[in-house]
Amino acid sequence: MKQGKLYGVGVGPGNPELMTAKAIRVIRESAVIAAPQADTGGQTALAIAAAYIGGKPVLHCEMPMTRDRAVRDACHLQAADAICAQLDAGRDVALLTLGDPTVYSSCWYVLRRVAARGYATELVPGVPSFCAAAAALGRALCEDGEMLHIIPATHGAVEEALDLPGSKVLMKAGRSVLAVRDALAARGALEQAALIERCGMDGERIVTDLSALDRPAGYFSLILVKEERE
Amino acid sequence: MKQGKLYGVGVGPGNPELMTAKAIRVIRESAVIAAPQADTGGQTALAIAAAYIGGKPVLHCEMPMTRDRAVRDACHLQAADAICAQLDAGRDVALLTLGDPTVYSSCWYVLRRVAARGYATELVPGVPSFCAAAAALGRALCEDGEMLHIIPATHGAVEEALDLPGSKVLMKAGRSVLAVRDALAARGALEQAALIERCGMDGERIVTDLSALDRPAGYFSLILVKEERE
Repeated sequence: MKQGKLYGVGVGPGNPELMTAKAIRVIRESAVIAAPQADTGGQTALAIAAAYIGGKPVLHCEMPMTRDRAVRDACHLQAADAICAQLDAGRDVALLTLGDPTVYSSCWYVLRRVAARGYATELVPGVPSFCAAAAALGRALCEDGEMLHIIPATHGAVEEALDLPGSKVLMKAGRSVLAVRDALAARGALEQAALIERCGMDGERIVTDLSALDRPAGYFSLILVKEERE
Repeated sequence: MKQGKLYGVGVGPGNPELMTAKAIRVIRESAVIAAPQADTGGQTALAIAAAYIGGKPVLHCEMPMTRDRAVRDACHLQAADAICAQLDAGRDVALLTLGDPTVYSSCWYVLRRVAARGYATELVPGVPSFCAAAAALGRALCEDGEMLHIIPATHGAVEEALDLPGSKVLMKAGRSVLAVRDALAARGALEQAALIERCGMDGERIVTDLSALDRPAGYFSLILVKEERE
């Protein structure tokens, strides 16, 4: 029997209309859908793609938000095993991921494991959250010779990163949003910054005056920092 | 008469199937298409979207690849004038752009001018070239707490940028590709790098051994530099 193929499919940032034609086709043509499940039970990628899944079987892959490497590895291994069982039965699997599968995607670790076992795999790119956030704000992310720095705000290098020349995106700002705001204020950069939460999803919030922030934001929050240019 | 609206539409990196459902809908619903035209005559964005344009009128907007600010400004002004004439006549205009309209997009300057004149505008995000390049290479762009730096290779800050911690994308590497290769070699980072030219377009080329490069690459070239991680 011919083995199935694993597709790592970016479903874009939230609005189902921002899925690519290829993502829609691959989901439609795959026999089985695999979708990450947060420890809160949330399945954002699955919800985005819901209209194209119909009655297909769905593998729910636990992806806890933890930095405990052993816990994460065990989850990735479990997901890879479940997916490989489907591939061995000759079924193609579409593993969904929010945004783009090459940008801070948990699904990447699963796909890499499956590929290392010799199965056919393919990554299907998607619109990353920061592009949708800039579009929602009506701003450019970067122009001309400007560098663009994508910075995971949860990993402690924020202060240093804010001093880099060019435009910045602070990803997953969530709990650290007030600290980032204060670091921006200390640099006189507050007016260059804007926050967007749950871009393209229910409960989208745009904050262009960060001095008004008085509480941490949710997990799906980005801060864009962009110099005004003529 | 009701004024038309201008959409800045990202058509993705090259493969028409990587257009979003929204980009396709907006192009279909717009009365007029505006498309950048390089000084070489190339109209890459128009070619990507060709299947959805049909017999609609197309405004060809000259976008020369020059750093001469006055020449560029004159082109942006001319494009904005032509687009506003259509908007005044009540027609919606879809201004196409390769990749994403917020990432080094010439069309952004045109849209900003039109918005400043008080017209309704909207940015429709697209898949940026670097996401498609990473997917084609079967690599992650960035993982975990790694920063990702997007660097315009044409603007002289490459050496400095290569010393930043994290993952890097060198955009529009083209003519400077051999210099970038030498700078990577001097840092012992050659094995972490790969070049992709015309990703998803006719003539796509992937070079994973940069030491074999013996000539400059074309305009649509990216170099990805990524530390291997466990």
